[in-house]
Formats: sequence, C-alpha cells, structure tokens
Amino acid sequence: MDNTPEWMAPLASQLSKTLAPRDVVPAGPKYLEEPRGRFTAAQTLVLTPRSTEQVADTIRICSDLNIGIVPYAGGTGLVGGQTQPPRGKASVILSVEKMNRIRELDSDGAVLVAEAGVILSDVQDAASEVDLLYPVSLASEGSCRIGGTLATNAGGVNVIRYGNTRDLVLGVEAVLPDGSILHGLKKLRKDNTGFDLRHLLIGSEGTLGIITAASLRLMPRPVEQSTALITVPDPQAAVALLGHLQATLGDAITAFELMNQLGFSFVRDHIDGVDVPFPELPQWAVLVDLGAGRDAGLQERFEAAFETAMDRQLALDAVLAQSEAQRSALWAVRESIPLANRVVGAISNHDISVPVSSIAEFIAQADAAVCGLGPLRVGAFGHVGDGNLHYNVYPEHGQDRDTHDILRPVIKQVVHDLVHQFSGSVAAEHGVGRMKVEDLAIYGDPTKLAAMRAIKSALDPKGIMNPGVFFD
Amino acid sequence: MDNTPEWMAPLASQLSKTLAPRDVVPAGPKYLEEPRGRFTAAQTLVLTPRSTEQVADTIRICSDLNIGIVPYAGGTGLVGGQTQPPRGKASVILSVEKMNRIRELDSDGAVLVAEAGVILSDVQDAASEVDLLYPVSLASEGSCRIGGTLATNAGGVNVIRYGNTRDLVLGVEAVLPDGSILHGLKKLRKDNTGFDLRHLLIGSEGTLGIITAASLRLMPRPVEQSTALITVPDPQAAVALLGHLQATLGDAITAFELMNQLGFSFVRDHIDGVDVPFPELPQWAVLVDLGAGRDAGLQERFEAAFETAMDRQLALDAVLAQSEAQRSALWAVRESIPLANRVVGAISNHDISVPVSSIAEFIAQADAAVCGLGPLRVGAFGHVGDGNLHYNVYPEHGQDRDTHDILRPVIKQVVHDLVHQFSGSVAAEHGVGRMKVEDLAIYGDPTKLAAMRAIKSALDPKGIMNPGVFFD
Repeated sequence: MDNTPEWMAPLASQLSKTLAPRDVVPAGPKYLEEPRGRFTAAQTLVLTPRSTEQVADTIRICSDLNIGIVPYAGGTGLVGGQTQPPRGKASVILSVEKMNRIRELDSDGAVLVAEAGVILSDVQDAASEVDLLYPVSLASEGSCRIGGTLATNAGGVNVIRYGNTRDLVLGVEAVLPDGSILHGLKKLRKDNTGFDLRHLLIGSEGTLGIITAASLRLMPRPVEQSTALITVPDPQAAVALLGHLQATLGDAITAFELMNQLGFSFVRDHIDGVDVPFPELPQWAVLVDLGAGRDAGLQERFEAAFETAMDRQLALDAVLAQSEAQRSALWAVRESIPLANRVVGAISNHDISVPVSSIAEFIAQADAAVCGLGPLRVGAFGHVGDGNLHYNVYPEHGQDRDTHDILRPVIKQVVHDLVHQFSGSVAAEHGVGRMKVEDLAIYGDPTKLAAMRAIKSALDPKGIMNPGVFFD
Repeated sequence: MDNTPEWMAPLASQLSKTLAPRDVVPAGPKYLEEPRGRFTAAQTLVLTPRSTEQVADTIRICSDLNIGIVPYAGGTGLVGGQTQPPRGKASVILSVEKMNRIRELDSDGAVLVAEAGVILSDVQDAASEVDLLYPVSLASEGSCRIGGTLATNAGGVNVIRYGNTRDLVLGVEAVLPDGSILHGLKKLRKDNTGFDLRHLLIGSEGTLGIITAASLRLMPRPVEQSTALITVPDPQAAVALLGHLQATLGDAITAFELMNQLGFSFVRDHIDGVDVPFPELPQWAVLVDLGAGRDAGLQERFEAAFETAMDRQLALDAVLAQSEAQRSALWAVRESIPLANRVVGAISNHDISVPVSSIAEFIAQADAAVCGLGPLRVGAFGHVGDGNLHYNVYPEHGQDRDTHDILRPVIKQVVHDLVHQFSGSVAAEHGVGRMKVEDLAIYGDPTKLAAMRAIKSALDPKGIMNPGVFFD
C-alpha cells in the first residue's frame, strides 16, 4: 500500500457513503489494458455503481475532489478511450458493468430499454425472443456493453440498412458532469423539444457524462434471408454491384462487406476450420446479406440480379448460401478476418471512411502511396456500402510488426492525408479515444473544434469526464 | 420613414459593405405572418445573402451591433419560429431563399448537396431524375425549404420507414453565432470524430446558427408500390394491424396514417373533388403505403396480409389502389385533411407523440377529458407508426373557433398534461418555436433545460440567434 497515491484515501472515504466496499476496488489487469496493446495505464480504483443514483453520487464526489473519471463498459474499444490518461489529473475508472438490467421490453411499441451495462448480444437475444431485431452487430458483440456502443456510436456490418447505433436510440438516461440526471428515456419516434442532447451524448466517448440507460429501437426481423460471397474484378465493380443490387432489390441489402486477397490468405493460414470457398483465393470479394419479409421470393430475385451482374461483368463468381449452415460458413470467413489480422499483427491500422463513390479511387491511390514506402502489404476490408474501410498495413511475409515501428507514423500520415484529400474521416466507426487526438487537431474543422471546446467547457468546466479524450 | 427604428440606419450602412441593396429590404407581409395567424410582428428588414460568406459577414455585423437574427427559409413553420420576437432585442430576418443551388448530385454515392434555400420538392425531383428517392415528404413540400426542414427536423409521412429529416442528413455547412463557418458538408455514412454538431444544429430552430447547406442521403427508389385505405374498428386495432403488417411484410411499410371520422367529414364538406371512397364515413381508417424492389410481388403479398387481418378483425374493409391514379386519389384524402381542418378552424391544435403502444389508450383518455370540458369535437389524424398525432379540438358544428378562445389554454393544458403522463412529447414534429416556450419550461426535463441554456450561452453568448425561441 506504500505506492497508493495520496488522493485515493479521501476519495475512498467519500465513496463509502454511497458505494458498497466491493464496488470500490483496485483495478485488475483487464481495466488497465486494451485490445491492441497500445496503451498501458497506472494503477487506480474501479468503481462499479449499481444504480443511476449511485452514478450521480459518484460523479458529484469526484467533481468535488477534482478527480477524473474514465467511463468503462465492455472494454473492447480500439482507440484507448477506456484506458487511464497517461498524464494530467488523477482519475478513476467508473464501470457500468453492474447496471445490467433490461428494464423494459415493449414488443408492441418495438422498444427495449437497457441499462448501460447490458451486453450487446443480450439485447440482440431479448429482441429475438419477441421476434424483433436489434440490428447493431459487430465483432465484439458478445462482450461489449450497450453504454460503450452508445458512447462510441458503434457501427458494424448492418449500418447500410439500419444505420449506426445513434440511429437506433430513441432516448438516453445519463448523468452529466455536475451529477445531475438527464431523464431522457423516451420511447418516441418523434420529439422536437429543443437541442438533441441524445445525439450530443452519443459518440461523445464519455467526455460529457455517463449514459446509464437507453431506449433502443427494435426493427421487424427479416423472415427471408439470403447470403452470398461474390468475387468481383476490383473495388470499382464492387461499388457498381452495390448500386445494381440496390436498384433491383430496393433496400433489402443488410450487409455488403468488401475483402481483399491478403485478408483471405491470413484466414487460410491462421484460422482453423474456416474455409474460403473458392479454388483460388479471390483478388476481391464481397459478402452480401439480404433480408425481407415473408414470401418475398428473395433468393430467386437475388439469383436473377446476380445473373445480370455477371452479364455486366460486375461479378465473376459466387457462392450463394442454400442453407442456414452455409450462411454461417460464409459469415465465418468475414468474421475471421479481424481475428487473423490480429494474429499477423498490422504495423498500422486505419479505420477510415470516404464517400462511397470514391472508394475505388481511394484504394488505388492509397495502395500506390503505401507501397512506395517500402516492402509492405495492404489488407483492406470493411463496410463498402458505408464507405468505411479498415485499411491495414502489414510487413512482408515472415517479418514482425515491431521491427517496423519507425514506419508507423509515416504510414499513418500518408493514409490519413489521403483520406483528408478525399473529404473522408480518419475515425469512421471506432472513434477518436486517446489514439487519434492529434489527428482530430490536424484534420478537424477549426470551427467544429472550437465549438466542441466551448460545449465541453460549458458542461464539464472542471474537465473531469474522460480527460484526454478528444482534447489534449 | 419617420417610424424607422434608430438601429436600422447603422445596420444598413454596415450591411452595404457585403450585401447588395436589393438584398436588404423592408419586410413584406409574407415575412411578418405565419400560416396559423397566431403571431403578428413588427416591421423590420429582410436580408437575403447569396453565399455562405455573405451569411457569415451578415452575422458578424449583427453580432457587433447586438441585433437579433430570425432565420427564415420557406416560412411554413407552424410554431412561429420564423416570426419576429414580440419583445426583447431588435432583430432582422435573414432569409436563405436566394441560396437555392443544388451544389452536387452524386448518384453513385446516393448523396445530394443542397443549399438551404432549395425548395424540398426540388430536391425530391432532382433525386427522382437519377432514379433515387429523397424520402422526406410533408404537406408544405412545394414551398418549404431545406434549411427550414433541417432547423426544425421536419417529420412527415415517411418517417416510419426512413426516419426524420435528421436521419437523412450526412453533413451540414453552417455559420455559427460568431460568424465562423462550420465546414461539415461531408458525404460520409460513418464519421466518429467528436461531438456530432450536425445533430446539435438540426432541430435547434436557428438558435445556434444558420445552416447554409446540407449533404442529404438519397435512398433506393421503390419499384413496386402498393397503397390502401383500410377501415379499422378503433385505434387499438390500427396499432395491431401495423404490427401484423410489419411481421408479414418486413419494413416495406413507408407510411401508416390514421384518420378519424371528423377529419373525413371535414374533407367531404369543404374540399371539392376529393372523394372518401366508402358509402359511410368510417369511424377510423388508416392509409397504408408500401414500397419494395423489383418483382417483389408486393400487391399480392399485401392482399394476402390484408385477408389475414380481416380474419383477425384488425380490419373491416379496404380500398386497395389498382392504379397510380387510384393511389393518388387515396393520398388526396389524407392530404386534404390539414386543408379541411384549416377551413373549419381548430380551437386548439396539438402536435404530440406518445409511445406507439400507448396510442389507443391516450386517445381514449384524451377524448374523455376534452369532451368533459364542453361541447367539443376532436379530429385526430397522423403518423400512428411514429406515435405522432395531430390532435385537434373543434367547436360544435356551425360554431366559430374565435368564440372559444377562453377555452383554448384549458384544452391545451388538459391535452399536454396527459401527453406528459404518457411520457410523450408536446412538440413532436413541428418544433417549439415561440408557441411552446412555456410548454418546454413546464414539461421539459430540468437537467435538459439547464444543459440547453449552458450550450446556448457557450455558442451564442449575446443571444442574437432567433431570440425568444426555446428560451424566454
């Protein structure tokens, strides 16, 4: 206990008035690490309140003592927003994991009210049980929590049809930096009563308060579904194929995921039990997922649209799933790519977006620029219907990413500069966190940054909420 | 010119440095009135800048002279937000009507960039020409302008499928109260780079700045469409019918509009050339509109779903359109209701929403409460799929609304109190404007109101942007 920082004792004493002793504990390793291993954090306390009122008390106490608060949900974020700030004021972790009740499931109104600590897949399952759909779906859905998905406005594979997380949130309950409770858990489709604080809090990465619960919109569950893995000549053809399918099938497309050969080779080499179902690994392919109501004849219409796409040379070959097992097998290829990528280890990852119509040109220019920097390989995959690519750069086969650390900032700058030239985003779906604070300052609109600082100062004058995220 | 307020001359002098003389003129009647005739305004100047830079210059000049700015687009708002404040600081009207260019139409990317002064139906038409859809559709679409639809987050009849205006905006360009220009015209589906100022500005009714242009998301245009006017036993059956159709047809439903007998009788009595296609005026009916891609067999599937609904007594009778002309005729009934209502003249209009699952119970309780106040009639119509009703109260047949003015505040309070009990919204799609400032103070969450004031002070410390809207 000799190394205990001096601010901890008075804080713990104050917290004991509202939190049980088991809800104020030293942070274990999982709270001090993050998935990509880019950040390491100093020891601190983890607070696990069990109610909105306890969150409010906790925030008031921290505010009085001028101690920072890092909100924590599932800990799966990829930009370090859930980690301790490396410098600046002392801070604690406030985890919502013990606020994990589904408060209400209104199937007639198609609304589910979940506390911030509910795991995303538990919301999906609850919706499924009443034959509805909560469409947010992403790699970490088995461990990320609703509060984190709102704080980061999580994206995922179904955005093309259903939007980002913010598009599925009808209301939020939150505690603001002064400890006041925002009672905004409305279940309304329409509510024009002043500034939309819901959307201000969603995506604010814990810098303006802590979301404690949310009303989530549920959607009709598709009855018919079709899935195919379609090889395409190049990214331009992929975008044209998307347009063709949208013109033919309306907005039945629920996912449209681009992958390149390097990703397939990583899956083949490193992931057991997953089969890329072509004799040779395709240069480019898209996983297409469709959904519609009963008796929509989706599979037949999809097959007809695919034939036309072949005639127009937008597609080269395809595996159309004929069963639920085949659907799962095709999705397993796509879902294995991030896992395989992590085994190989990228020198630099880029979560970027450009206008959908610019994707092909962006990839061509970025590949040329990156490969001009040295013997590097590019793995590009992502949500082409959203203009969102995970554009990752790897060393040559057999080489280790750590020996290329010196190249990392150069690669990052080349890719991000190009994204900026395409009027794109250098933080498309994972957020800014601590990792991209500098990028925000470089590429952000100055008027936007000034307005963000003004709002932050107005709502959090002491700067206690997630210090170091967004603003240095 | 003797009555010219003393602040006008120095303002006009400063403005002459940036605006042409024809763009600084005394306000004609259309700028001083609003559709419901609830507000009358003092004479002032109308400024019509032609570029974003001119808007910025204008705002800086007004800020220096501490003169308020009332933003004006199409002038069709129903809550007085476009009118001069009755008291408080001197103010001018800044109309975006001369900024009416469609800057870009990216059909591959399905994005249209429009200046704030473009008329909504011109955006719909431009999208249509490239076989895409801008789905925001509302009564005033032939005269309202994009800037106004964003400032008020306009709703309309297609919200159930496509969301409110905010859900279709990818980016905004705006001038903030200090005259700085927010360059946020991104065309991205995913962009998590800090606070979402786009959503803060949308729905802020001109109190935080002036939106000068927007990137609008276009959607696949439905190839097959089906429309029916279906009579239902009561509102509860209407909600159940909606659930049944959603479970059967997925999210093919693009509109689901409830109407009651009083509305039909007003149309029959006051609107020429529009026919309610039933021998007797139904107690309740819904207009259902569906859209899907090519070869979806929509009409057959809709007819099958309707048969099942009849068996379950969710529907009594129906007219299913068999041609485009019949579709238009059915829509004409729905679209005539607001016109007929205006001819009759409501004592009190209420633009409210409640959770979809509470609509029937709300109508029952509200009808009982209102009819307990005297010999009154209720016309309820609206977007039941969004929980949004236009709940209007009329005098008995042959009586004039003006003789009931004394009842108006009582009726309003009874209805709004009940909406609040149902966790609803007293300003669902038309906004707050000047008309509902008091309601916002009464029914708004105190934490939300305090945060709104803090944000307003941070971004507009002099309070020049639309003074009197939201805050008294």
